[in-house]
Amino acid sequence: MSVARIAVVAGDGIGTEVTAQARKVIEAVLPGAEFQDYDLGARFYNRTGEVLPQSVEDELAGHDAILLGAIGDPSVPPGVLERGLLLKLRFDFDQYVNLRPSKLWPGTTSPLAGVKPGEIDMVVVREGTEGLYVGAGGVLHQDTPAEIATEESLNTRHGVERVVRDAFARAQRRERRHLTLVHKTNVLTKAGSLWARTFTAVAAEFPEVTTEYQHIDAASMFMVSNPQRYDVIVTDNLFGDILTDIAAAVTGGIGMAASGSVNPERAYPSTFEPVHGSAPDIAGQGIADPAAAILSASLLLEHLGHHDEARRVSEAVAAEVASRVAGAPLRTAEVGDRVAAAL
Amino acid sequence: MSVARIAVVAGDGIGTEVTAQARKVIEAVLPGAEFQDYDLGARFYNRTGEVLPQSVEDELAGHDAILLGAIGDPSVPPGVLERGLLLKLRFDFDQYVNLRPSKLWPGTTSPLAGVKPGEIDMVVVREGTEGLYVGAGGVLHQDTPAEIATEESLNTRHGVERVVRDAFARAQRRERRHLTLVHKTNVLTKAGSLWARTFTAVAAEFPEVTTEYQHIDAASMFMVSNPQRYDVIVTDNLFGDILTDIAAAVTGGIGMAASGSVNPERAYPSTFEPVHGSAPDIAGQGIADPAAAILSASLLLEHLGHHDEARRVSEAVAAEVASRVAGAPLRTAEVGDRVAAAL
Ligand SMILES: CC(C)[C@H](C(=O)O)[C@@H](O)C(=O)O
Ligand SMILES: CC(C)[C@H](C(=O)O)[C@@H](O)C(=O)O
Repeated sequence: MSVARIAVVAGDGIGTEVTAQARKVIEAVLPGAEFQDYDLGARFYNRTGEVLPQSVEDELAGHDAILLGAIGDPSVPPGVLERGLLLKLRFDFDQYVNLRPSKLWPGTTSPLAGVKPGEIDMVVVREGTEGLYVGAGGVLHQDTPAEIATEESLNTRHGVERVVRDAFARAQRRERRHLTLVHKTNVLTKAGSLWARTFTAVAAEFPEVTTEYQHIDAASMFMVSNPQRYDVIVTDNLFGDILTDIAAAVTGGIGMAASGSVNPERAYPSTFEPVHGSAPDIAGQGIADPAAAILSASLLLEHLGHHDEARRVSEAVAAEVASRVAGAPLRTAEVGDRVAAAL
Repeated sequence: MSVARIAVVAGDGIGTEVTAQARKVIEAVLPGAEFQDYDLGARFYNRTGEVLPQSVEDELAGHDAILLGAIGDPSVPPGVLERGLLLKLRFDFDQYVNLRPSKLWPGTTSPLAGVKPGEIDMVVVREGTEGLYVGAGGVLHQDTPAEIATEESLNTRHGVERVVRDAFARAQRRERRHLTLVHKTNVLTKAGSLWARTFTAVAAEFPEVTTEYQHIDAASMFMVSNPQRYDVIVTDNLFGDILTDIAAAVTGGIGMAASGSVNPERAYPSTFEPVHGSAPDIAGQGIADPAAAILSASLLLEHLGHHDEARRVSEAVAAEVASRVAGAPLRTAEVGDRVAAAL
C-alpha cells in the first residue's frame, strides 16, 4: 500500500508553478507518496465546457488528499470555477473544517507597526459546509422594480457541533489553549443562539480550554488592533471567509497563507491549497512565491498523520523565508529546491 | 420655526458625557437649535422593563434628527437594547443610508506602518434596512440533536437601488469620484446579482464616477493592505457592519468614528451617533474622548442642510485633535469647550 495517494489539481496561472514545488517537497520528505495529476480549472473548462465531470470527482474520491494550486482566469465568468470546483468539493467531500493558520513568520513583515515575528500565531477554524454557502434562496421578478433576492443561511446542530468540537480539540493541543467564538448573536439571533449554545455545551468537554465570545465586527477590529490576542477562532462559513483574509493581511498578505478544507474523519479526501489565487499577471515567469503552497503541503501531511514530516516541512519553509535577502529576486523553483534540500 | 429640533438620546456610560459636548458644539454653531432629552438605554430599561415605548418613538418622529450617545450596560442582556432601540429606529424611520466616514486625521496614528494622516479618506455607505438585519429566519427542534437555525437575507430592488444611488451621488460630490461596490457575488449569487445589476444600471446616471467591484473578503484584506485606495464604498448591511469596523481600526480605532443612520428624504428623523459604545469601564470619570460624538454632530448638521456649520465643526475637531499633546490627559468637557470656543 502506498504511504499517501495524492491527487494534484495544479490549476491555472501560478497554481501550476507553486504546486510543483509543494509536490517536490512532499516527495523529499515522504518517499513513496504517489501523485496523480488532474487537469481542472480554467483551461479545462474553456476546452470542455465542464468544471468537474462526475467521473473525475469519483476518481478524486479515491485519493487520500488533494493538493490544489489555484484556479481562475479572466476568460471564465467569475464564480463558475469557485462554485463548481472548490465549493463543490467542500460540500460533496464533507470538508466541514476549513483550517486557516495565520502566523507572522520570521523574515516577514506585518503591515501593523510594532508587531514582531512570532507575536501573531492563530488558527481560524471556519465551518465549511453550511451557513450562507449552501446556495439557498432565490430571485423573484428579476429585472423589474419589484425584484427581490434572498439568501438563506442554514445551520444545523450537527454541523455546528462537529466543527466546534474540532476547534476545541485543536485549542486543547496548543500552548495557550484559548478558543474564541465569533458570530453576530446580537443581530443573527437564530443562528447565533445555536452557535452560542452549542459552543457552551461542547466547552464542558474541554475544561482546560479558556473561551471567549466576540461579535464579527469587533473581532474584525481586534484583528487589526490586537491580533496577538487570538489563539484558535471558530466561526461560521462567511465570517470565516472574511476573518481569515484579515488575518492573512495582518500577517503580511497571502504570501504565507495556507489552508485546508478538511474532513477530519478522512471519510473523504481533504483539499489543501494556498489562499492566494492564480495571479495571471505574474504567471509563467517563475517568480511566484511557493511558500503558501508548501505550507499547505505541510497541513496535508499533518492531516494524513505524518506529524514529524509536517513539522519538518513547515520548519524548512520558515528557515527559507527567514534566510531571504530583502530585495533579492525570488525564483519559484529555487525556493522549492532549497526547502526540499533542507529536508 | 426652530432652525433644528433635535432629540437627544444620551444613553448610558460615556454616552451622556460625550453627547453633552456634541450638544454644546451644536449650540455654539447653530444658535436657536432646540433640544429635547429622552431618557432611554440601560437605566431606562432596568427601571421600566421597556426599551422604546411607542409614545416615545412617536415623539422622536416629530424631531428633525436624533443625537445619540451610546447605549448598553452589562446589566442588560446583549442584543436587547441594540435591537429594541438602534435597529428599531433604523427600520421604523427608514434610515436606509448608514453613513460611516473614515479618515486618518492629523494628530492621530494608524496602526498601519507608514500610513500618514490625510492618506486615508473614505466613506462607507452601508445599507440600513434590509439584508440579514431584517430578523427573518427561525429555529426548529431547539436543544435537540435535530436543531436547525436559519437566517434570511432579504434584498429588494427598491432597497438596493436607493442606497446605491445615494452612494453614487455622494461619490459624485467628492474629489476622487470613485465608488466601490463590495459584496460576495461569487457565493451569494442571488443577492449578489441583484446588487451588481442595480449598481451597473445606476452607474449609467453618473458617468463621471469611476466604479469597481470587490468581494468582501478581498475588500477586508485591502482595507488593511491599502486603505488609501478607497473613496466611497457601497455595500449591504452586514458587510458594511464589518467593513466599517476595519476602516475604523486602520484609522486609529473608534476614537474618531462618527456615523449617521440616515433617511435622505427627511421623511423621518435620522440618527447620528459615535461608533464607540458606552464604555462602562471609564464612564463617569470625564476622560472619554468626545471627538467621534462631535463629528457625528457635524454629520447631523450636514444632513439638515447646514453645510457651512458642519464643515466648521469638523474642522474645529480636526484642529483640536491635531493640537493634542501626546501623553497629556484628556478631559471630555475641555475638548468640547475648546471646539466650541473655536467656532
Ligand atoms: C473562491 C471563494 C468561493 C472562496 C470562499 O469564499 O470560500 C475563497 O474566498 C476562500 O476563502 O476559499
Ligand atoms: C449594535 C449593533 C446592532 C450595530 C450593528 O450591527 O449594526 C453596531 O454594530 C453598528 O455597527 O451600529
